[in-house]
Amino acid sequence: MTEPTTTPQPATPVPPVALSILPGEGRLEGSNGRYEKHLPDLEGLYRDDAAYREVLAADDGQPVYWVETTHTEDGPGGLITGISVLEPGTVGAEYAMTRGHLHAVADRSELYVGLSGRGVMILEALDGRTEVHDVEPGKAVYVPGHWVHRSVNVGTERFSTLFCYAADAGQDYAIIERAGGMKSLVVKDGDGYAVQPNPDHTGYELAPRP
Amino acid sequence: MTEPTTTPQPATPVPPVALSILPGEGRLEGSNGRYEKHLPDLEGLYRDDAAYREVLAADDGQPVYWVETTHTEDGPGGLITGISVLEPGTVGAEYAMTRGHLHAVADRSELYVGLSGRGVMILEALDGRTEVHDVEPGKAVYVPGHWVHRSVNVGTERFSTLFCYAADAGQDYAIIERAGGMKSLVVKDGDGYAVQPNPDHTGYELAPRP
Repeated sequence: MTEPTTTPQPATPVPPVALSILPGEGRLEGSNGRYEKHLPDLEGLYRDDAAYREVLAADDGQPVYWVETTHTEDGPGGLITGISVLEPGTVGAEYAMTRGHLHAVADRSELYVGLSGRGVMILEALDGRTEVHDVEPGKAVYVPGHWVHRSVNVGTERFSTLFCYAADAGQDYAIIERAGGMKSLVVKDGDGYAVQPNPDHTGYELAPRP
Repeated sequence: MTEPTTTPQPATPVPPVALSILPGEGRLEGSNGRYEKHLPDLEGLYRDDAAYREVLAADDGQPVYWVETTHTEDGPGGLITGISVLEPGTVGAEYAMTRGHLHAVADRSELYVGLSGRGVMILEALDGRTEVHDVEPGKAVYVPGHWVHRSVNVGTERFSTLFCYAADAGQDYAIIERAGGMKSLVVKDGDGYAVQPNPDHTGYELAPRP
């Protein structure tokens, strides 16, 4: 038990938030934020540009992934929680994936809990280590601080996860762009997946302080 | 998007943690901590002391609730996540419950996600507000900072939840003891539950800084 300390009490703390998790519909009822990514937003994400153009030409305009969040308090006390939903598919050899990020406040960690479908989390440390973990219903992965991470849908259904991270963490997406992509690719291999080195990856470098 | 900042990188960030959530067994595979509460540990928790003595006399020595956690990093970046498992039952009119707590760093929030069984989360703010939310599979509750909170099993099966909170939050259990218990009781009412005022509750007061 930690020794209690008195911290200033706000006159009226924000109300609790009741959430219903609807992975089938890809929704988090009770959330107060949503963003969507469409195929045209993902220019440069996949290695095979010709394959990307091909998929883009057949695009039906639906989002390829989206996130619904509840964010009621800022950091350091607040947590952002939400559902991340990633449609299945491939672009060239690569499975459908999110952009991936390091937290802008890099020591902030994140929990991902599998809700539906079959996916993996790629995790890469700036010292060169890569880990790839399966995420599916009943499985979760704790992403410590200082790990670049990305979700990949390696199945044939919607891959959805519940996540939770500190409200002051933020996201640094550019670290992956500057590095020529993540170090590892998750590609189709029969009915499963394989992890391959990305020949374009030039190593991670933190942005200089602005 | 938050502007990236450079924070010092540890030479070797701690490895990610793969977790398997086993609510049927009441286990979190991959966790590195566990504590159990037995009936004799809960002296004074329930209002009806005669009923408590009676249940205690028939005690089979098994834990009445337990928690398995993964804790790999300290705050402020780290998160503790775990499974909380609460056996069903009543002591007098009251349903089986956890001790409840305010976070020692009171502005720290917590997410609870229902995994099995049927329970409620009682939430009480120091300004006198009470909220009671149902928690069951597919439902979650975000507990903002500054809310005293407790889990209650209002069903007939094990009630288990997945939780996630900042590693530096800590728990202040004594605030409830000093107040003569929480302001609200969750009691059996037919097959369901009712929320009643606790006549012993004297109001919450923060501990003086040591």
